[in-house]
Amino acid sequence: MSASANPQVSQEAMVEFLLRMGDSTLILGHRVSEWCGHSPVLEEDIALANTALDLIGQTQMWLGLAGEIEGKGRDADKLAFLRDAVDFRNALITERPNGDFGMTLMRQFLFDAYHFQLLGKLEGSSDARVAEIAAKAKKEVAYHLERSADLVIRLGDGTDESRKRMQAALDELWGYTGELFIPDAVDEAIAAAGIAPNPADLRAPWLAEMSAVLQDATLKIPASTYAHKGGKKGVHSEYLGHLLAQMQFLQRAYPGCTW
Amino acid sequence: MSASANPQVSQEAMVEFLLRMGDSTLILGHRVSEWCGHSPVLEEDIALANTALDLIGQTQMWLGLAGEIEGKGRDADKLAFLRDAVDFRNALITERPNGDFGMTLMRQFLFDAYHFQLLGKLEGSSDARVAEIAAKAKKEVAYHLERSADLVIRLGDGTDESRKRMQAALDELWGYTGELFIPDAVDEAIAAAGIAPNPADLRAPWLAEMSAVLQDATLKIPASTYAHKGGKKGVHSEYLGHLLAQMQFLQRAYPGCTW
Repeated sequence: MSASANPQVSQEAMVEFLLRMGDSTLILGHRVSEWCGHSPVLEEDIALANTALDLIGQTQMWLGLAGEIEGKGRDADKLAFLRDAVDFRNALITERPNGDFGMTLMRQFLFDAYHFQLLGKLEGSSDARVAEIAAKAKKEVAYHLERSADLVIRLGDGTDESRKRMQAALDELWGYTGELFIPDAVDEAIAAAGIAPNPADLRAPWLAEMSAVLQDATLKIPASTYAHKGGKKGVHSEYLGHLLAQMQFLQRAYPGCTW
Repeated sequence: MSASANPQVSQEAMVEFLLRMGDSTLILGHRVSEWCGHSPVLEEDIALANTALDLIGQTQMWLGLAGEIEGKGRDADKLAFLRDAVDFRNALITERPNGDFGMTLMRQFLFDAYHFQLLGKLEGSSDARVAEIAAKAKKEVAYHLERSADLVIRLGDGTDESRKRMQAALDELWGYTGELFIPDAVDEAIAAAGIAPNPADLRAPWLAEMSAVLQDATLKIPASTYAHKGGKKGVHSEYLGHLLAQMQFLQRAYPGCTW
């Protein structure tokens, strides 16, 4: 097997693409896992924990492949637990703090809707390993999206208080959605090789799907088009460093530990 | 110089005593430092940062002496940054979360009042090194106490809102004060050798000083005598692990780093 599945794409670009996939699922998965034992009702606690598990399972596949192609002996665990913030490539929306339950749900919905569109395209990737991971992940993410969309509608079109909170969450998170659809040179090279869609092409279907749900939820999409950027280049908010400090503590304190 | 200044006390007991001193100042100092850049007014931001610096400076002395007496090559940095929660000996009150500004101030006041009494006795310690550290620290802590007492009075005897918050802080923190005055075998051995006072003997002067301030602040001491315990045996709340993950990140991620 060649180091990279597609000779048109550099090993660096391929690793970069896979880190972006795996870091976003890892960081969002960790954020969601922070709810474990703290959710408002048992059913949601279990559902959120399952979502976190799915995302971390997907991380194992994306980062596992990244490590294999990188060829430096770093497996998914090493990539997850022994890199510092500047080496993380997750989208900024995934590192946003949980806030209240509404904020967590809105973050999940905005990301799920994007994630589902992305995985749908990745199923047809020119790289067979990428296509295989995407096909597995898409089944899980279809369910994440169904759940988060349903809850966004119920809480948005709910009480005055729940509607207010969901709108506030949308207003705050909106500026972190733009980054998902802005391609850079790596994205363009990966897209040209047919490995992944160009992020810009995902915006319209994402917007269509999302708008329908938000309309049912009686929520208004903010007019601002300002987009916080930097995640895919390793320029993160202060939140990521704190998250990593918690997430990586065990492996940092007990290097090479086994159990 | 002998490993322990006082032949009546075991090396283990002496190290344990010094860890208790240094861990409490370290953890409280770190908590207070979390306010840096977040305080309600500039003056308080600077004052809190200075308090944190004082406490961390005292930590350097207490843990430095602990490491020296322990004789295993661990200096203050190694003791601060490379131990896990179960090896920390700080009083539980010092690891309580900052909460609002009132909670932070009340925690500071309750600890300062105890700390000041303790250091006053330690100035007369039979161990010259302990006495020397205490004399330096007491000057700083006298100022901490003056400040925190003054602010507790101003906010307690302030607006309805500020009074409510200060009373809520006192109610929540009260259960963490009992531990400070409950001796164990180490405390008793250390007290018998004249190195430190028996914690039980500090309670009356602490209560007298504190009650006068709380009365001026129009705040009521809770009736409950329940005391959360465990800090001095390494049985900590979940908060300490999270605090250490943040505090120790750099040294854990970059072992032996220099700058």
